[in-house]
Amino acid sequence: MRSRGLDLARGRVDLTHGAGGRATSRLVEELFQPAFDNAPLRARDDAAVLDLPPGRAVLTTDVYVVSPLFFPGGDIGRLAVCGTVNDLAMVGARPLNLTAAFVLEEGLELASLSRIVQSMAAAAREADVTIVAGDTKVVERGKGDGVFIATTGLGVVPPGVTSPGGARARPGDVVIVSGFVGDHGMAILSCRDGLAFESPIVSDTAPLGDLALAMTAVAPDIHVLRDPTRGGLATTLNEVASQSGVGIRRRERDIPVRPAVAAAAELLGIDPLYVANEGKLVAICAATDAPRLLSAMHAHPRGADAAIIGDVVEDGDHFVEITSTFGGRRILEWSSAEQLPRIC
Amino acid sequence: MRSRGLDLARGRVDLTHGAGGRATSRLVEELFQPAFDNAPLRARDDAAVLDLPPGRAVLTTDVYVVSPLFFPGGDIGRLAVCGTVNDLAMVGARPLNLTAAFVLEEGLELASLSRIVQSMAAAAREADVTIVAGDTKVVERGKGDGVFIATTGLGVVPPGVTSPGGARARPGDVVIVSGFVGDHGMAILSCRDGLAFESPIVSDTAPLGDLALAMTAVAPDIHVLRDPTRGGLATTLNEVASQSGVGIRRRERDIPVRPAVAAAAELLGIDPLYVANEGKLVAICAATDAPRLLSAMHAHPRGADAAIIGDVVEDGDHFVEITSTFGGRRILEWSSAEQLPRIC
Repeated sequence: MRSRGLDLARGRVDLTHGAGGRATSRLVEELFQPAFDNAPLRARDDAAVLDLPPGRAVLTTDVYVVSPLFFPGGDIGRLAVCGTVNDLAMVGARPLNLTAAFVLEEGLELASLSRIVQSMAAAAREADVTIVAGDTKVVERGKGDGVFIATTGLGVVPPGVTSPGGARARPGDVVIVSGFVGDHGMAILSCRDGLAFESPIVSDTAPLGDLALAMTAVAPDIHVLRDPTRGGLATTLNEVASQSGVGIRRRERDIPVRPAVAAAAELLGIDPLYVANEGKLVAICAATDAPRLLSAMHAHPRGADAAIIGDVVEDGDHFVEITSTFGGRRILEWSSAEQLPRIC
Repeated sequence: MRSRGLDLARGRVDLTHGAGGRATSRLVEELFQPAFDNAPLRARDDAAVLDLPPGRAVLTTDVYVVSPLFFPGGDIGRLAVCGTVNDLAMVGARPLNLTAAFVLEEGLELASLSRIVQSMAAAAREADVTIVAGDTKVVERGKGDGVFIATTGLGVVPPGVTSPGGARARPGDVVIVSGFVGDHGMAILSCRDGLAFESPIVSDTAPLGDLALAMTAVAPDIHVLRDPTRGGLATTLNEVASQSGVGIRRRERDIPVRPAVAAAAELLGIDPLYVANEGKLVAICAATDAPRLLSAMHAHPRGADAAIIGDVVEDGDHFVEITSTFGGRRILEWSSAEQLPRIC
């Protein structure tokens, strides 16, 4: 009965797709299940029953409202999978399972939804996680914006690994960043503002679970791991300084920023240190751990450009300070303004 | 520095609250953390590290877009906690931890958000779960509708309990419902349409974890447990019939419907069997288990009105059939239309 199936080529989301009846069921059976295929999802029960490996369980959630839905280097689906996987990785966990909840706006092309779902499935395979449960709701035209996706991740910290935490930075520690910063945010902004550059700026959206596990394997007591998403590197460093009650001093060496990103940032009057990353991490570790951590990062494709960018110091004000190339100092403030709405 | 705090009495959500900087941080520190207070949330890391008790882990997710946000008997916050707790309970799990992700519309009164957050905290205490991780995004005016909340639940199936599942109904089993059906959906519709009745219709939104554990304690092999939410009892029974490859015959005895709900349903031309419930469950078990299951339910405040309503039979068509009081038979179809948008 072909006529009863979803018309993925020309169809659009309507309110019946969120009503919990036949249309909802069809969306699940014809779109979500084949794409995310796994046993708990096939069971079609209210919750997925899982067998976790030994270790401490880890749970995290994020909701994605990025605009536009598709951008150079990714889309909301890839972002939703990678962002949540990365939050698990940042506490030292092996990412295992995701859930995905969709708020669809009436009128959304089913072809766009399908493209997003396929992209999620591909990112999940890349990150070696399964999407075991989901939900779909539909809101009237003008009460949403195409698609919002909430993803929650479950992982396990392997036995022997001490979970990194934002409150664990200590004076004497060094600060490492895994590569070029500002790519994701500038890709979104460039594409939103219709900016054209010689080399297009591409989002760095990528899963970091494998890199993080390679790092904890050589240094099982990394003090802090963070992915500098919203608010960028500057905000992440300020959060850590505040949580740990320390100061952070950026070293002379420049924080790696791609020329195209730096150019676009200058054009738009934005500091790339405040721009979101979706495939980069910051690690803070004891100075003695830094060399082998850096080697392990350089040996991994997602950490090839890793560099030490600063030091943790005692500072009752918890300032993050930058020394300019001319020897001057400036404090890297918290981002207080909404420079970049709906970047993730 | 009072001026830098949130103005919960007169303030409104703006785009900075979702930008990941100081304003986001303030929202977390002054609203979410005090309300949901627990150790993983206080740690302010990307993910919550948890120690789970023995048993199989269970994960579920739902996103809530109910309109209006506040309704007789509940609000979107209470609904978001209870709905997700109930999905865990329906596979035999003890609900333990929740995550909550918010999509806020620019302009939302902070007082409304605060009221919703307090209601979530109260429901979490009632359900004995902790909200261990969260996320907040803000979308521009006209790109959302006040608040959407995605909640994900983690629980554990105690050792010795066989997880109920929608595919486990067998011919000869009996079908039990825990109380009056249609309350939640009719409460939303009445309040949306401004209908006035002598006795107002109140949503049944409530956590069912405790009732479900009382049930699995006396009958550790309940075949199916489901909360008949979207699509109501009729859709739930059809889903189970389809998943299990069986038919279901409703017994002569009436399915319990409150007079006010029946009256409102008639007025609106809606069958209460298709109306969402948020504090009721359906159990399908071996006939030999039914008496002690029913006793355990009757002894619990959330199951006081429990009744056997049908039998599972062999049926290649997987029909759910009702025998009318006059002896006629009708098939209870799947709900195919969007009768009730944004009911949860």
